[in-house]
Amino acid sequence: MTATPQAEARMTAQFLQALAACLPAEGLVLDEAGRRAYECDALTLFRRLPGVVAIPEEIAQVQAILRLCDDYGVPVVARGAGTGLSGGALPHAEGVLLNLSRLDATLEIDPDRRLARVGAGVRNLAISQAAAPHGLYFAPDPSSQVASTLGGNIAENAGGVHCLKYGLTVNNVVAATLITIDGERLTLGSPLGEAPGLDLLALIHGSEGLLGVVVEAWVELLPLPRDKRVLLAGFAEVTDCAEAVAAIIAAGVVPAGLELMDRAAVVAVEAMVQQGWPCDLGALLICELDGSAAEVTAQSERVTALLKTHGADHLESATDPAEQARIWSVRKAAFPAIARLAPDTLVMDGSVPRRRLAAVLTRIIALAEAYGLRVFNTFHAGDGNIHPVILFDSRLEGELERAESLGQAILRLCVEEGGSITGEHGVGAEKVDAMCDQFSAAELRQFEAIKAAFDPRGLLNPGKLIPTLNRCAELGHLHVKDGRFPHPELPRF
Amino acid sequence: MTATPQAEARMTAQFLQALAACLPAEGLVLDEAGRRAYECDALTLFRRLPGVVAIPEEIAQVQAILRLCDDYGVPVVARGAGTGLSGGALPHAEGVLLNLSRLDATLEIDPDRRLARVGAGVRNLAISQAAAPHGLYFAPDPSSQVASTLGGNIAENAGGVHCLKYGLTVNNVVAATLITIDGERLTLGSPLGEAPGLDLLALIHGSEGLLGVVVEAWVELLPLPRDKRVLLAGFAEVTDCAEAVAAIIAAGVVPAGLELMDRAAVVAVEAMVQQGWPCDLGALLICELDGSAAEVTAQSERVTALLKTHGADHLESATDPAEQARIWSVRKAAFPAIARLAPDTLVMDGSVPRRRLAAVLTRIIALAEAYGLRVFNTFHAGDGNIHPVILFDSRLEGELERAESLGQAILRLCVEEGGSITGEHGVGAEKVDAMCDQFSAAELRQFEAIKAAFDPRGLLNPGKLIPTLNRCAELGHLHVKDGRFPHPELPRF
Repeated sequence: MTATPQAEARMTAQFLQALAACLPAEGLVLDEAGRRAYECDALTLFRRLPGVVAIPEEIAQVQAILRLCDDYGVPVVARGAGTGLSGGALPHAEGVLLNLSRLDATLEIDPDRRLARVGAGVRNLAISQAAAPHGLYFAPDPSSQVASTLGGNIAENAGGVHCLKYGLTVNNVVAATLITIDGERLTLGSPLGEAPGLDLLALIHGSEGLLGVVVEAWVELLPLPRDKRVLLAGFAEVTDCAEAVAAIIAAGVVPAGLELMDRAAVVAVEAMVQQGWPCDLGALLICELDGSAAEVTAQSERVTALLKTHGADHLESATDPAEQARIWSVRKAAFPAIARLAPDTLVMDGSVPRRRLAAVLTRIIALAEAYGLRVFNTFHAGDGNIHPVILFDSRLEGELERAESLGQAILRLCVEEGGSITGEHGVGAEKVDAMCDQFSAAELRQFEAIKAAFDPRGLLNPGKLIPTLNRCAELGHLHVKDGRFPHPELPRF
Repeated sequence: MTATPQAEARMTAQFLQALAACLPAEGLVLDEAGRRAYECDALTLFRRLPGVVAIPEEIAQVQAILRLCDDYGVPVVARGAGTGLSGGALPHAEGVLLNLSRLDATLEIDPDRRLARVGAGVRNLAISQAAAPHGLYFAPDPSSQVASTLGGNIAENAGGVHCLKYGLTVNNVVAATLITIDGERLTLGSPLGEAPGLDLLALIHGSEGLLGVVVEAWVELLPLPRDKRVLLAGFAEVTDCAEAVAAIIAAGVVPAGLELMDRAAVVAVEAMVQQGWPCDLGALLICELDGSAAEVTAQSERVTALLKTHGADHLESATDPAEQARIWSVRKAAFPAIARLAPDTLVMDGSVPRRRLAAVLTRIIALAEAYGLRVFNTFHAGDGNIHPVILFDSRLEGELERAESLGQAILRLCVEEGGSITGEHGVGAEKVDAMCDQFSAAELRQFEAIKAAFDPRGLLNPGKLIPTLNRCAELGHLHVKDGRFPHPELPRF
C-alpha cells in the first residue's frame, strides 16, 4: 500500500503490441530520437528517457491505455505541454509517457452559464481566446500559458500573477472527467458548481497525475474586467516595500496582481531595459487593480496613499493599455535580465507569510553570502510566493551542487518561517524529499493511503509528490510535529 | 474495505470505564434521559438513542477517545450543535455520540492577516461577533448560524444566503486540525492559504464526519462591506422572475444574495406579515448587493434595469439597514409562515441549473398535484439551490409516506434536470439512498476507497453519505453513466 515505483520491467513485446492497438497510427513512439523529445519537462536538470511514448487522440484511447498498463503493471507518466518546473512529467524508464496534448478537440464556450467544456490538451491561453468574443476569459494565467495545457494546469494546480485575486486553477474548475488506472471514467464535481459526496475534484488539483488522468473539464469563465490600472512604486528600502504590501492587503484591497523585485533584480532589469530609475532603488512594486471604473479609481487612491505612507519615492500610474504593458514588461524582463548575468540559473519557488517577506529576504541574502553565490529575488508578494533565482556556473567544480544546497536551504527557511516548500511550481521529482520537512509522518502516511485508494500498485507517476517514510528517515528530515498546530512559528506574526 | 456499519456491539463495561478515564467528570452521559437529548439533529424524522455520549473539552481528549474507539471497534458519531437537516448527526445505537460543543475555548482573531483560529465547538455567529471590532466578519452564514458550530459547518460544508458571492465554508477555511480514528493529529491546508501535497482540506469539507474529526481550524475573515443595498421585485409570472435571475448572473453581476419565492410562498407570507403586496404576485425576488458605495450604485442600476426588462411590476430598493432588515424579514418569515398552514412540513433541498429554475418549478407543482399534497417554493435562486416545502398531516393514514415519496420524486427530478440531490443540507442519513441516483458505481467505489483510506473499519459515522453498492442494487437505482460527461442532460441548457 505504498506509492513507491514498481521495480520490475513489464514492457514486454506483447504489451507494446497491445499498446499500439489502443492508439492511432502515429500515436506510438518507440525510436530513441522520438522518445528523446520527452526526456524532461521545463526542469531540465532532471532527465530520463521514457520506455515508450503514447499519444492518444480520444478519451476512449486513454481508458484503454490505462487499463492495459494496469493489466501489465506498467508505470504511466502523464504529460501536457511539458512546461512544468518541478519535474512532474519526468518519464519512467520502464514505463509509458502519456502525451495528452492531442486531447485538444473539445473547446465549447457556453456564454450564458459562463462555462467552457475543455479537453485536457487545450492550451490555457486558447480558452481565453475562444471566450474573448463573449467578453469572457479564463482567469488562471501561469507564465507558461501560451503553451501549457489545461490538464497540466489541473495536475499542478497552476497559478499566475493574478491568482491573488482570482485564485488558482482549483478555484476556476467546476467539474472534471478523471480516468482511473483501471480505465474507469469518473465525473468529479459538477458544472453546477457544487456536487454532493466527497470533494474529489479539489483533491485531484495539484495531485500531479498520481491519482488518475484528467481528460476533460468544465471551467468557469469570468467577465473581462471593465477597467484596469497598473501602479509602479520604487522604494529605497525593501523592508518598506514589504510593509506596504502587508498594509495594502490588511486594508482589504485585493489587487489583481502584486509583484515585488529586490535591489539586485531591479539593477539587472534596469541594465537591460533602461527605464531611468534612480540607481539606489531598493525594491520595486507593481500593483494591478481591476474592476468597474469607480472601483478601480477608489482602490487606486487607497493604494497610492498607502504606498506614500510606507515611503515610496518613485510612483507611476498607468491607465492606458500600452503604458500598462510597458510596466508589466519590466516584470517579465526580470528572469531574462537575471539569466544573462551567469551561465546557469536555478529558479526557486516557495511561500512565506506576507508579514515575514522582509525578514525572509534578509535571511536569503545572508544564506547566499554564506554559500558564495548570487541570488536575485522576484516575488508574487500579495500571496507570499517567492521566486529567488540562484546564479551559478555549472562548469566550475562543485558549483551546481552548491547552488542546489543553497536551494534546499532556502526551502527549509520557508518551512521554518511558517511557509511552504512550493508556492506554485509543484513538488514533482524536484521537491519530493523536501516534503519530509513539510509534513509529519502521520500526514505522509495519510497521503500514501489516499494514493493507494486510487492506485493501489503505485503505477501512476511513481516517485513524485509523496516521499516514502523510509526515504524521509534516510534523510533524517522526518518532521514530528504532533501536538503543535499547524506551523508552530505562525502565531508570532 | 467498505463503509458499512460494524454490526457487533463492543461497548463493554471495560470500554466504558476506559472512556470515562478520557473525559472530565461531567463529560460522560450514560443515563437514558441524558442520552435522549441527542437522539436526533434538526431532521427530527430520524431518531436513534446513542449508546453513550462523550463531551470532551480538549483536543487531547478527542484523540484519546478516538484511539479507544479504534481499539475496541466502537462506532463514533461526531456532533456540533445538532442543527443539521439531513441526519448527519443521527447517533449509532451501539456507539459513542461525540459532542464537540465544548471545544469552544479557542477564538483568536488575527486582524492583520484577516484570519481567526477557532475551536470546532465555537458557534458560527460568534466568529463574526469577535471579528466585528476589527471591521471583519466570517462570510458563511447558514440560517442556523446563531447555534451551529464551525465543526458542523465544515462537516456539512455549510452555505447560507450569501454563498453565491462569498462561497461555502470550504472557500473560507484555510487550515484545519483533523483527528483520525487512530488518534493521530493531522494539519490540513495552511494559514498561508496554500499547502503542497494532496488537498485533504477540501476533501474534509462536506465529508460529514466520515474521515476524521475536525477539532480546530483557521478561517479567513473578510472586511465588512462598506455599502449594501437590498432590492425587492414582484413578478406576475414566476417564469419571468427566473429569467431575470439568469439575466442578472449572465450580466456578470454577483449579488451577495438572490432569493426567489413562488406564488404559494408569497401568499403564505403576505397572510402573516401583511406587506400590502398585490394579490396576483406570481413570484418575489430579493436581491442584495454589497461592496464600495460606487460599486453598489452601479450594480443596483444595472440590476434594476434587468428586473424591469424582465417584467418586474413591483420594485422596492432599501438603502438603510432598518428597511433592509424589513425586506429580509419577509424571506425569513417564509418557513414559519408556511409551517403554520399544516401540522407537518418536509423541507427539501436540491439544486438545479439556473436556466432550468422555471421548468423545475412547473414540474414540482405538477408532481405535488399528482401526489395530492401542497408544495411551497423558496429558492436560493442565484446558485440554483431549491428548498421546496411539502405540507402534510402525519396523523392521516399514509400521508407521511406520501410526503416522503414526493420528496424522493423531487430529488430524482433535480438529478434528471442536471442538478443534484442536495444544495446545502448535506446527504447524511436522509439522502444516502439518493446517492445511488447521483453517482455511478465506479464513483461510489472511489468514495468507498477514500473512506477506507482514513477509516478502514468504517467506525466513523457509519451509514451516512456513502451508500453501499449492494444497497444501490437493492434499490434498483444504480446509475450507469459510463461514457457520458458529466450529466448527459446538461448540454441542453
